[in-house]
Amino acid sequence: MIKRTRRTALRIVDHPAFQPAVITVIVINAITLGLETSPAVTGVIGGLLQAVDQLALILFVVDIGLRLVAHGRRYWRDPWNVFDFAIVAIALLPTSGPFAVLRALRILRVLRLVSIVPSMRRVIDGLLRAVPGMTSIAALLALILYVAGVMGTKLFGAASPENFGDLGTTLFTLFQTMTGEGWPDIARELMDTMPLSWIFFVIYILISSFMVLNLFIAVVVNAMEQEVLAEVRAEEAEHAAEEQVANREILAEIRELRAELAALRAERAAS
Amino acid sequence: MIKRTRRTALRIVDHPAFQPAVITVIVINAITLGLETSPAVTGVIGGLLQAVDQLALILFVVDIGLRLVAHGRRYWRDPWNVFDFAIVAIALLPTSGPFAVLRALRILRVLRLVSIVPSMRRVIDGLLRAVPGMTSIAALLALILYVAGVMGTKLFGAASPENFGDLGTTLFTLFQTMTGEGWPDIARELMDTMPLSWIFFVIYILISSFMVLNLFIAVVVNAMEQEVLAEVRAEEAEHAAEEQVANREILAEIRELRAELAALRAERAAS
Amino acid sequence: MIKRTRRTALRIVDHPAFQPAVITVIVINAITLGLETSPAVTGVIGGLLQAVDQLALILFVVDIGLRLVAHGRRYWRDPWNVFDFAIVAIALLPTSGPFAVLRALRILRVLRLVSIVPSMRRVIDGLLRAVPGMTSIAALLALILYVAGVMGTKLFGAASPENFGDLGTTLFTLFQTMTGEGWPDIARELMDTMPLSWIFFVIYILISSFMVLNLFIAVVVNAMEQEVLAEVRAEEAEHAAEEQVANREILAEIRELRAELAALRAERAAS
Amino acid sequence: MIKRTRRTALRIVDHPAFQPAVITVIVINAITLGLETSPAVTGVIGGLLQAVDQLALILFVVDIGLRLVAHGRRYWRDPWNVFDFAIVAIALLPTSGPFAVLRALRILRVLRLVSIVPSMRRVIDGLLRAVPGMTSIAALLALILYVAGVMGTKLFGAASPENFGDLGTTLFTLFQTMTGEGWPDIARELMDTMPLSWIFFVIYILISSFMVLNLFIAVVVNAMEQEVLAEVRAEEAEHAAEEQVANREILAEIRELRAELAALRAERAAS
Repeated sequence: MIKRTRRTALRIVDHPAFQPAVITVIVINAITLGLETSPAVTGVIGGLLQAVDQLALILFVVDIGLRLVAHGRRYWRDPWNVFDFAIVAIALLPTSGPFAVLRALRILRVLRLVSIVPSMRRVIDGLLRAVPGMTSIAALLALILYVAGVMGTKLFGAASPENFGDLGTTLFTLFQTMTGEGWPDIARELMDTMPLSWIFFVIYILISSFMVLNLFIAVVVNAMEQEVLAEVRAEEAEHAAEEQVANREILAEIRELRAELAALRAERAAS
Repeated sequence: MIKRTRRTALRIVDHPAFQPAVITVIVINAITLGLETSPAVTGVIGGLLQAVDQLALILFVVDIGLRLVAHGRRYWRDPWNVFDFAIVAIALLPTSGPFAVLRALRILRVLRLVSIVPSMRRVIDGLLRAVPGMTSIAALLALILYVAGVMGTKLFGAASPENFGDLGTTLFTLFQTMTGEGWPDIARELMDTMPLSWIFFVIYILISSFMVLNLFIAVVVNAMEQEVLAEVRAEEAEHAAEEQVANREILAEIRELRAELAALRAERAAS
Repeated sequence: MIKRTRRTALRIVDHPAFQPAVITVIVINAITLGLETSPAVTGVIGGLLQAVDQLALILFVVDIGLRLVAHGRRYWRDPWNVFDFAIVAIALLPTSGPFAVLRALRILRVLRLVSIVPSMRRVIDGLLRAVPGMTSIAALLALILYVAGVMGTKLFGAASPENFGDLGTTLFTLFQTMTGEGWPDIARELMDTMPLSWIFFVIYILISSFMVLNLFIAVVVNAMEQEVLAEVRAEEAEHAAEEQVANREILAEIRELRAELAALRAERAAS
Repeated sequence: MIKRTRRTALRIVDHPAFQPAVITVIVINAITLGLETSPAVTGVIGGLLQAVDQLALILFVVDIGLRLVAHGRRYWRDPWNVFDFAIVAIALLPTSGPFAVLRALRILRVLRLVSIVPSMRRVIDGLLRAVPGMTSIAALLALILYVAGVMGTKLFGAASPENFGDLGTTLFTLFQTMTGEGWPDIARELMDTMPLSWIFFVIYILISSFMVLNLFIAVVVNAMEQEVLAEVRAEEAEHAAEEQVANREILAEIRELRAELAALRAERAAS
């Protein structure tokens, strides 16, 4: 009985029309969620949008349910499935009271597109492959941010409380400075009371931008290795194969020669 | 009759002075269109500028007409010709009433330079070759922008209507944030009423800059493959050819040897 | 007697639990130094934090003392040890009077993590390897900054004293312009009194960003050489080794052939 | 007589102490020119600074005069010498009246350091090698800037005269937008009166940043070709040489074999 249910589920999930249907639902839901942001539109067809949204949610639950039945435990092995499950689960949480902010997270459902369209999935998989090579530098960058945060709070907390008042505020200011945005205003204001504070900013900017550059290089080098080196390697392999053929041909000729020479000796010995 | 017209048109279009003449007209027209932006200049020689502009337009129409007659249907196969045609066609549209904005598009004619000067054409062709490799990441970036747009409008629409009032405004704010410009002002203002809104900005900036970085890498890797790999490949090919010559020489020597050995056996058999 | 002390110190320093213990102390100290930035927290457990801080400092002194005893003069050969020593020495300086700013430098102790965790040490070592390739361009950039600084002070010092008043102020303004931040405000203000001052800004931005780009490229090329070229080289070497094996095999076959021929001649001579 | 003068000049110019002496003069002059920017310093030792400056100028004239005498016409073949000559010539122009601005250009003399220190000269030579590969894209970027400039002036000249009032102002605004600085303020102000003006900004930013990216890639690819490819090529050459040795060894062995076989046949024929 359970086996038959699973077979039916598998037949539905693997049906060629199943994936396009899910994509269609996601796209329609993306549009309705976008329209819901406009008070003018919700004023006229708000009920319809809500209904479509509910229907899409139900279809998502059915979709994931079918996959769960079809694949059983194997479902959880693919991280994309876990991602799908989590996104739909968020939408099922109550959105009243302290969880009101979760209403805004419903749009995350649209990201299911990424898990369903193979070409997008490949892009994300490619991006994630770059992550391991970045961890050491990212950890170092976090350490530098923390050190600069504590130092900045101690040094400038009293002089500029709105930018360096507490550790959290300082970290935000430093993140902002790292994106290279609006730091001169903050620095110039500080330099009025603490003329040497430019030293902190210049050193921090030089170090953090050097670190970000290296984070960036880690990603580029990774991409190079994946794409350019793969091609170089493929060509090398082809070239090596050609050469092996040539070498084998030469060896075969020499062995033939030895065989003939052996035959000559044998004839001589026989005569 | 038609054939003769076409032959005459071809003779004009292929004449060595034809292309330089068109380039001259485009450059002169570019200058007059630039001068037209100055009220002081138009006050003095506005009539002359208008006349030159009209004349240039007529010459462009003649130019494209001749090419159409000369090449017939083949004209439409080259996308650069379609580009040329569209740009000149825009200039022929009425520029009064609701189409007044089209007057400003007349300067686009100057872009015909790109379609006529071969070295510029090659640059654009090179740039366009990078586009296919970017589509998947660009689509993903657009998806992220849309999701963040809907989320931002829902979360901050009430608190900061001038930046997150509706989906269009939010998308502009997010594009602005992606170019790394003026985002701290927007974030700090929001953080006064919603202290946790920095989470949205930090996550959005990290993800979008990582995506832009990867878009950028796609272009770099593409350029590397076109330029650097092509050279590596050419050298490999040369090297492989040299080796083939060497291998062939060795094989020839061995075959010679076998022939001599065969001769020796033949002599022995004869004696 | 001294020898025995050294042996004991070495046994402690090389004990597998020694390094994790130091890391634990650093992390705990990092947390307490972070907590100390919050007046609310220091109001409640300020005494405890101070005590932990003092204890951590004592442990650091003991740690470095043990290493000094254990390694003797060799301790100073590793630049990481010098770094460790300097950071702990800063914390021992008096932090009252004119040295009050040194209190803020105590957080630098957390950077000892980098010198102790091997993976972070490797990252920094890798970053430092990129430095020599950058010195020439960095020197050139400093020269350009100095020239532009003197020129800017002379040209704009009178018109905009808050941005170009003296050499130091101008250099800060130019550094700010180089990070691409807030320069249009400065330039537009100047252009009100000196309409041609845009020339200075445009030339400076073009040159300095071209220099920064080349500084950046020096780092990228260095990383490429270290990572990508190393792989290409390894493959080449493997390929060359394979080929050598093939060539040796051919040579061996030919020599065998010669031996057989020699044997044939010997038999002939004998008969 | 002339010949002897030239020989003496050559002996001075090629003397090992000549170049360090010139470098010393340049560095001292750089410092005095820097000190001259400070009214406080010029108030005390202004006369001394002026005297040093005059002396340095005289020494520069003597330096270039000696080189001119020593090398004759060949002096003008090296572009670095032309650069040296022009920089010193600027300092000799009258600096009163309309040429007052030239006083600020005197600091350019410090750039003579670049022409004299070989390692800096190599950096600049390397940077200049990247220029030819950039011209086509730079020309295209200039064309796009001009087209966007004319279009922007026509479209927004009336609505925002301080940013788009005339072609020059618009080009400055577009350059500013290209550096990604302060554009949202300009765009948002415009969007109040012309709600669709964001289209212009978004398209311009996307196109110009794509062009700048490609300009940048042209430089990176150039550097890669110069540095990385050169190494790959050198290794390939070494590898090819090794292989040639191996092939030659095999050929020699085979020829030896043929010689022996020939000897065998000769012996047979003789017997």
